[in-house]
Amino acid sequence: MIVLTLNCGSSSVKYQVYDWANKDVLGNGVVERVGQAMSDLEHKSKGKEELVAKRACPTHKEAIEWVMESLLDATYGCLADINQVKAVGHRIVHGGSVFTQSVLITDDVIAQFKKVEPLAPLHNPANIMGVEAARALLPNVSHCAILDTAWHQTMPDTAFMYALPHAWYENNQVRRYGFHGSSFLYTSKRAAVLLGKPANKTNLVICHIGNGASACAIKNGVSIDTSMGMTPLEGLLMGSRSGDIDPAIIAYMAREANMTLEQVDSALSKESGILGITGRFTDRRDVEAGVAQHDPSCILAQNIEIYRIKKYIGAYAAVVGPDLDAIVFTAGVGEFGSDIRVGALSNMEHLGIKIDPAKNALAMTRNAETCISADDSKVKVFVIPTDEEIVMTEDTVAISNGTYKVHTEYTYIFQDPNYVNKAREAGLPKDLTKRPGLDKIIAKPAK
Amino acid sequence: MIVLTLNCGSSSVKYQVYDWANKDVLGNGVVERVGQAMSDLEHKSKGKEELVAKRACPTHKEAIEWVMESLLDATYGCLADINQVKAVGHRIVHGGSVFTQSVLITDDVIAQFKKVEPLAPLHNPANIMGVEAARALLPNVSHCAILDTAWHQTMPDTAFMYALPHAWYENNQVRRYGFHGSSFLYTSKRAAVLLGKPANKTNLVICHIGNGASACAIKNGVSIDTSMGMTPLEGLLMGSRSGDIDPAIIAYMAREANMTLEQVDSALSKESGILGITGRFTDRRDVEAGVAQHDPSCILAQNIEIYRIKKYIGAYAAVVGPDLDAIVFTAGVGEFGSDIRVGALSNMEHLGIKIDPAKNALAMTRNAETCISADDSKVKVFVIPTDEEIVMTEDTVAISNGTYKVHTEYTYIFQDPNYVNKAREAGLPKDLTKRPGLDKIIAKPAK
Repeated sequence: MIVLTLNCGSSSVKYQVYDWANKDVLGNGVVERVGQAMSDLEHKSKGKEELVAKRACPTHKEAIEWVMESLLDATYGCLADINQVKAVGHRIVHGGSVFTQSVLITDDVIAQFKKVEPLAPLHNPANIMGVEAARALLPNVSHCAILDTAWHQTMPDTAFMYALPHAWYENNQVRRYGFHGSSFLYTSKRAAVLLGKPANKTNLVICHIGNGASACAIKNGVSIDTSMGMTPLEGLLMGSRSGDIDPAIIAYMAREANMTLEQVDSALSKESGILGITGRFTDRRDVEAGVAQHDPSCILAQNIEIYRIKKYIGAYAAVVGPDLDAIVFTAGVGEFGSDIRVGALSNMEHLGIKIDPAKNALAMTRNAETCISADDSKVKVFVIPTDEEIVMTEDTVAISNGTYKVHTEYTYIFQDPNYVNKAREAGLPKDLTKRPGLDKIIAKPAK
Repeated sequence: MIVLTLNCGSSSVKYQVYDWANKDVLGNGVVERVGQAMSDLEHKSKGKEELVAKRACPTHKEAIEWVMESLLDATYGCLADINQVKAVGHRIVHGGSVFTQSVLITDDVIAQFKKVEPLAPLHNPANIMGVEAARALLPNVSHCAILDTAWHQTMPDTAFMYALPHAWYENNQVRRYGFHGSSFLYTSKRAAVLLGKPANKTNLVICHIGNGASACAIKNGVSIDTSMGMTPLEGLLMGSRSGDIDPAIIAYMAREANMTLEQVDSALSKESGILGITGRFTDRRDVEAGVAQHDPSCILAQNIEIYRIKKYIGAYAAVVGPDLDAIVFTAGVGEFGSDIRVGALSNMEHLGIKIDPAKNALAMTRNAETCISADDSKVKVFVIPTDEEIVMTEDTVAISNGTYKVHTEYTYIFQDPNYVNKAREAGLPKDLTKRPGLDKIIAKPAK
């Protein structure tokens, strides 16, 4: 079965085509700046040259049409006929409390997504536009929704309830939902494999640190708390989002700086975080370069990022309890930000966490899972490159085949100790040459 | 020297008269419901009957006049002549970044307090009204300001900076300030005495849990982080304050529930916290009674309170580092809420923290300091009744005498291992009879 996965952001479409029979990626890419005068496509099919192109995509519909065209392109494509695609998996950011697992998309399901649109006004409309465009182009295959929030529906009320007027929860669905669900699902199951433990006996703190960032506390294989909240604004420092602040600041700034609520609210999402502190960067690579040049605002941004990750790891280590197995870092910054990892985990021996700085410095690859804790660390520290697409793909396959169940009752292919991520491991020889010693820290499934 | 301390809240005046020569409280009390149709006074002088009375106090001025009258009352008072009062200490909630220690009040200082009024619009105006009324009644003595925020000025920028547009910090003083400074100062110095360590080598996490609640991380005797923020809204669960929330909730509720920003902001302070969850209580004693009757909203409120304290202890244990000496509980709920303490510290052995449930259950007194950790707990757990008034008193005495210095260079009387809080210990025999076994958990200064 060939599966297409689509991840429609507010102004982008990421996609991947996966050959389930051979467990391999056939092609993938991204269309960016959707809705602007000119959009950019980057497309790569297995064994072929990369395609980079520009075209006007006023909406996600044109972007998805362009994706289909690229997939079928004689030179750059990976499909001979669009009907080879037998199912489509769609990332949906916000499913409210309704969806506790992935689901086959029907008109009723779309109506439910629209109901929770006010909770994710930037994300869900783009997601739904993507679903509708793809259904129009591929009307005869199953379309499935993989929801960021579904993973966190195992949180107890103690973690998901805010201390706000109860009517806000009853009438307006104000509660913690959490995001990055597919990433936490994938990395937690992989961590269990590396630990040689059943997933449902595994206790973890996972830090998904990308442009958006969130941490998740996992007990016995399920999410018991997460740093993002009703929306993806709360929690850790992010590229342009504030994360945690004193909520009184909003009314204060509206009064003091004569701003509207909308202006303050927008600044929290778009002008804060790393961007707010440095005044110019959102990308952590720029911050790292600034730190190397002793730029005070970059140093502050990096220190705050480290400090907040450390606090969340401490908080979640406390609530997960004595049997914490591992800390996991994932996503762009988690996989490559060795300075941030070593900072966040320094002086944590009293929590049973001891990072090996030399191993940590080597662990900068998307092609392998690595273990960066000291040999005598009670709690392991893993860097696990995330793979949200494989979760979306397998959920879509399983829903289409009628074998799908909620993650606690289902075993993913990547839970097999012999699972190999072919597309990833193809890059490993290059990495090993580039980083001598990397082979020594590659994590292997425990027996 | 006889010192009067005044703590003017938005609708109350708390006061105490202290005889510095004999290190004893002569009288104290509170006027509540200032500004309402009828205000209530409760007054108690040493060795005399309690006075309870009603009178209209339209402003803090009338309330302070009533305090003076009660102190001089032939039957209930403790002073023969108002001129016996040689100095007055005033609690000021918000000092911004200007004040790093207590200060003699001058017109310039009052002008500074007024400058930071927008940061504490409920508290500072009442504080300043109290200062002005007291200066009018006692124009010839020194008036000193003891600021909640001063204690936390040792926080590094990593802890006090929010990830917000930098101009908000530069132009509008948006940063973490922290509160409950006198309480953290007192309990941290007492914890050092009980540990037998110099204050500047002591590492602590202190939970001040009252109607307002905040936690403080203390490294080498100084505050390095705290849960309250720019205002006292952020952080732990409180009586009617939300503590931490997703900041995106504010604009969402304004949109969805058609509320003004002011209405949402006010609800976060006045209709949230324990009150928001239970719909009817702010006092934890009511919540405890509800829990005993299996009331679901009270159980949820208590569980959320416990859970949040646990998360902050974990976060601060991580940032304080491997040499954490003790966890300290103080203020009403911290001193009496044994269920909350045991919940917050359960399953923390991996952090070196092991509470003794039997000792914890006994520790419910304002008359003694107790140790409630298990004998083999690496980190001690103390319950230390707070005494903000003695800090205010001694700062006032020292400023008046010219011996005052910032707390890291000053030794308070209560840092003497032989210090006895006379007013407190007078109640101890009664407590020992009421709670057999209490004597076994009383903490003594380590040698």
